[in-house]
Amino acid sequence: MDVPDERTWVDMRLSRVIMRDNSEEQWIFLSETGGTRGFPIIIGRSEAQEIRRVVTGVRPGRPLTHQLTFDSIEALGARLERVDIVDLRENTFYARLVLREASGGERRVDARPSDAVAIGLRAGCPIRVAEEVLDQVRTDTSGPDPLPEKPDPDPDPKE
Amino acid sequence: MDVPDERTWVDMRLSRVIMRDNSEEQWIFLSETGGTRGFPIIIGRSEAQEIRRVVTGVRPGRPLTHQLTFDSIEALGARLERVDIVDLRENTFYARLVLREASGGERRVDARPSDAVAIGLRAGCPIRVAEEVLDQVRTDTSGPDPLPEKPDPDPDPKE
Repeated sequence: MDVPDERTWVDMRLSRVIMRDNSEEQWIFLSETGGTRGFPIIIGRSEAQEIRRVVTGVRPGRPLTHQLTFDSIEALGARLERVDIVDLRENTFYARLVLREASGGERRVDARPSDAVAIGLRAGCPIRVAEEVLDQVRTDTSGPDPLPEKPDPDPDPKE
Repeated sequence: MDVPDERTWVDMRLSRVIMRDNSEEQWIFLSETGGTRGFPIIIGRSEAQEIRRVVTGVRPGRPLTHQLTFDSIEALGARLERVDIVDLRENTFYARLVLREASGGERRVDARPSDAVAIGLRAGCPIRVAEEVLDQVRTDTSGPDPLPEKPDPDPDPKE
């Protein structure tokens, strides 16, 4: 996806992971670093499990799929420089990995936000979102808990 | 994992994918190319779903996790040259991706067989197994169906 870099980007952090049994829909919440804005993303079970593993410091005995992606990037002498959430269209978020080659070159790879965040957390790299995307989702995390216990999946964008 | 290359390697193909509802354990079956030997591997649901997508020619609208791994390798100018199943220890198979860099260098990345096969099928690359591993599993696919309808997961190695 070609997204111009002159966009304004906002640094985000993973603030919550909400896992629900017996549901294919899990939730992560990204919050503005040093700010009050944020938004939830509905993601799949495998990706939520991987994100929870990273957050809780669990390192499986063997590389699972996201770790394999990360290991492949590193084996090729590159590193994950950052994760960008670039777009929100038809209730779906779009993201990309920004890779830095050993030679200094930059490579971008389209990804789902859940995969990008899971790998980005393992890499410890910045996670950014385009200001326009943040404007579109307009959720204020400074108020009361924005996520009800049993959220209605419809109003919030899925990845 | 350091596995000497002087091992004998046997070319394999994916011959069956067996998916069972309401189970975390799914099955793939690898068979010797031009031979009669083969063995099942018990794999996870996500990986089996991805393998089935590749086999049935389904290309999701956005890159899922295995596709992201493949795309990242290609974005860095490398390609997946082959998948090797290198070991069977304590009822667990071990595999690796063999990557070829643009410069000609070879890089190896440890992987679960399910991830390696899923990505290898997307790449259309050879899948090999070490002769010793094949000797260890000793299943003959030339006879009657080696997989009962409701297989007991204990006797066969998981990945």
